[in-house]
Amino acid sequence: MLNDIKIVLVNTTHSGNIGGVARAMKNMGLSNLVLVEPKKFPDDEAIARASGAEDILDQAVVVSTLQEAIADDHMVFATSARSRHIPWPIMDPREMAALVGDVSESAPSSAKIAIVFGREDRGLTNDELHLCQYHVCIPSVEAFSSLNIASAVQVIVYELRMMQIGLAKKEESPQWGVSWDVELATQQEVELMFQHLEQTMVDTGFLDRDNPRQLMSRLRRLLLRAVPDKIEVNILRGILTSVSKVISKK
Amino acid sequence: MLNDIKIVLVNTTHSGNIGGVARAMKNMGLSNLVLVEPKKFPDDEAIARASGAEDILDQAVVVSTLQEAIADDHMVFATSARSRHIPWPIMDPREMAALVGDVSESAPSSAKIAIVFGREDRGLTNDELHLCQYHVCIPSVEAFSSLNIASAVQVIVYELRMMQIGLAKKEESPQWGVSWDVELATQQEVELMFQHLEQTMVDTGFLDRDNPRQLMSRLRRLLLRAVPDKIEVNILRGILTSVSKVISKK
Repeated sequence: MLNDIKIVLVNTTHSGNIGGVARAMKNMGLSNLVLVEPKKFPDDEAIARASGAEDILDQAVVVSTLQEAIADDHMVFATSARSRHIPWPIMDPREMAALVGDVSESAPSSAKIAIVFGREDRGLTNDELHLCQYHVCIPSVEAFSSLNIASAVQVIVYELRMMQIGLAKKEESPQWGVSWDVELATQQEVELMFQHLEQTMVDTGFLDRDNPRQLMSRLRRLLLRAVPDKIEVNILRGILTSVSKVISKK
Repeated sequence: MLNDIKIVLVNTTHSGNIGGVARAMKNMGLSNLVLVEPKKFPDDEAIARASGAEDILDQAVVVSTLQEAIADDHMVFATSARSRHIPWPIMDPREMAALVGDVSESAPSSAKIAIVFGREDRGLTNDELHLCQYHVCIPSVEAFSSLNIASAVQVIVYELRMMQIGLAKKEESPQWGVSWDVELATQQEVELMFQHLEQTMVDTGFLDRDNPRQLMSRLRRLLLRAVPDKIEVNILRGILTSVSKVISKK
């Protein structure tokens, strides 16, 4: 689905940026790049910055107007700074991605979507902005708001990919983001480990059962919030056993 | 709050990338940049790519090891590709930003946070990764997963800014339930505790330095993901000291 989304760059001045954009797109699974009158393309600097995404550059389509670039599209987003003289539907990149997701899920035939990025120095003209349904604004700080164009594309395609992953795996969400390598310890295994720990602390003289302070509570809080797995519990018990052996040899 | 978060770049090869990182940071309201042995810095290429964020470059601190860069920090995130031989608490940039938001809201004094980025070609070493509590993975496509470093920083700082804007909007209870009662341990305090733990394990005969298996990595993973506070670290060291006393009395 992301594969179909078109990234359109208008009048890009530095061809290195085009390469950076290609790399960002390929990193996030997009491949459809359209260039509106780039200053210099193809170019070695673009290839260098693409770092392995030359295929995106090779397939890139060059056209002469924004109108031409987006003629077939159903939904066009323009990236833009905040204020323009007439208000326009404006959203942040996350809202844009959510809308793209909704449309992709519910559109009867596959909706064609384009996202447009303006010139490095001046962005898009008002006429160009008004060709687009929505304006997307990356929430930078006001005093230093202009992102590098490859960085701006990176943020947008990252949000699209996050949306796609979210769509793909809404139900299962493993505890640590990836599946853990070892089964988690059961509550009983953890309790036995705590009993072992407490006994060892008494044996070494660190814990005085008549004046326990909060030692065990604090150790429980520490280890429980890490949610230990079976190997981790076994290692801790192995340490405790090795300490007991030293004590018994005294 | 974002202003305090430290971005750490390890052994950056292309100084242009350092400039790109500075620009991305300033766009999103961050200013604290630390460089671990950059290949070339300061450099004109960095200034050119910074495009107005030279102040971030001027204030950047250069150090010689990652250890030195993060010694004072309470919470350290490493950016990383997906698979390493033992799994580590891993999160996507959005989950990272949510956690940073929770900690910033609930930590008793201001928690010091660092986010570490590796070399352009090889990322971070396993030893470097194991100094950090969490690994953050930007969800790129598997076949082309390596982002430009300035782009990777852009994604991370964008998520932090989105989180901050969200925090500014809402007033909800922090995910950690209540404010923590004790100051978090610094990275250096935690490292000293691990050194003490390792030595004690050798002394009891549990750890054979010639055949360490994955014992220390697994113990690091367990305790780091709990993000220990100062009292917890002190209790652990107290236990270790009590064990040492028993051994020396043998």
